[in-house]
Amino acid sequence: MSDTTQQRLSLAVSTVVFALRPHLRTGRPTVWLPLVRRIREPYEGLWALPGGPLEDDQDLAASARATLARTTGLAPRYLEQLYAFGDVDRSPGDRVVSIVYWTLVRPDEDAQAIDGENVEWFPADEVRGLAFDHDVIVRYALDRLRAKITYSPIAHAFLTDEFTLAQLREVYEAVLGRRLDPANFRRQILAQGTVEPTGRHLTGTSHRPPALYRSNLARPRATLTIEETA
Amino acid sequence: MSDTTQQRLSLAVSTVVFALRPHLRTGRPTVWLPLVRRIREPYEGLWALPGGPLEDDQDLAASARATLARTTGLAPRYLEQLYAFGDVDRSPGDRVVSIVYWTLVRPDEDAQAIDGENVEWFPADEVRGLAFDHDVIVRYALDRLRAKITYSPIAHAFLTDEFTLAQLREVYEAVLGRRLDPANFRRQILAQGTVEPTGRHLTGTSHRPPALYRSNLARPRATLTIEETA
Repeated sequence: MSDTTQQRLSLAVSTVVFALRPHLRTGRPTVWLPLVRRIREPYEGLWALPGGPLEDDQDLAASARATLARTTGLAPRYLEQLYAFGDVDRSPGDRVVSIVYWTLVRPDEDAQAIDGENVEWFPADEVRGLAFDHDVIVRYALDRLRAKITYSPIAHAFLTDEFTLAQLREVYEAVLGRRLDPANFRRQILAQGTVEPTGRHLTGTSHRPPALYRSNLARPRATLTIEETA
Repeated sequence: MSDTTQQRLSLAVSTVVFALRPHLRTGRPTVWLPLVRRIREPYEGLWALPGGPLEDDQDLAASARATLARTTGLAPRYLEQLYAFGDVDRSPGDRVVSIVYWTLVRPDEDAQAIDGENVEWFPADEVRGLAFDHDVIVRYALDRLRAKITYSPIAHAFLTDEFTLAQLREVYEAVLGRRLDPANFRRQILAQGTVEPTGRHLTGTSHRPPALYRSNLARPRATLTIEETA
């Protein structure tokens, strides 16, 4: 490949961080994400996803983790590559391809969050007018989250190791943006087989403390089962 | 971002092309892919995925399509981003990040394939010793295909608009690498609701010509259904 062709290209790694925090008006768990205010052109003064140029000596995920630690103080376990965004016109001037990761943050991880300079958290559904094509990227990540929660146990990534079914339902409600019927939800989740009771109960809450569950990722999820020929 | 940091980075776009072709020994439909023999260092003489450097004026998918047209003559409709591979040590010398697309080719598209210079097709499960980390990439793509076929109608991408259930089963058998019981397969696929009868039958084959089906992607697939509260 010729050096001339590649000269103007740079590669950035950015991350969409989703955590559940109470909505400021309703108090209900809501999907939030941290953004960083740009302090130089292009798009100086606008909010953008935490990210930065890929360093020579860094793998892609390592670059995402380094930026997250610097801007938010977060060191999440769940980090997954989301998509590479590389449209020719997505950044004025130089050609910049962004490889975007996403992470779902547990409450105990979120408790460690420390906002870096120029960092603020926003309800994910309400952010508009971000730098570059970051509106599109946030929308893409939310769509992926909403799709994936219907066929995978990704919701568990928002919870600590043990959780009640009410807490799990609140995750689904936050992600899907609507209230769910508790009895139906309980029946469907238990039929799916992705959680199992721990035998313990949430203490200190009521006369009938709710049962605690944990992920049961060893069991296959309910999808098309292909039976082999005998 | 500093020019110094980005100087040695280049970005390639490669594509894993899967098509069903008869296995040379068994004659059964098998997953094949085209590879290109490298004519320069690094890895001169080894086989690699079709790919090339990202050009300044090309979007990512456009780059993948241009390489495919040049090397294989293919212009597939189904083209999806697979993953970005960017480990520091994946290429000797310059840092190269590869954004990999994948495509599943229909028989009528595959019939248009013309092998370019230094291009050959191989059974996907049998390729070893490719250039760079392309063994890992092919394995990753096969794993994704095998996972996705169990929860999405991706198998249809290997077929023309109308197909028999036996043809659809052959796709599953080729991807999963094992024979499936026809009656069980029929029951499970129909329960899944992703195909619907066209009302037509395959002609000229037998006394009882098999029914033709088509994709029914408008219907939701069988996953966790979240009912809203009343």
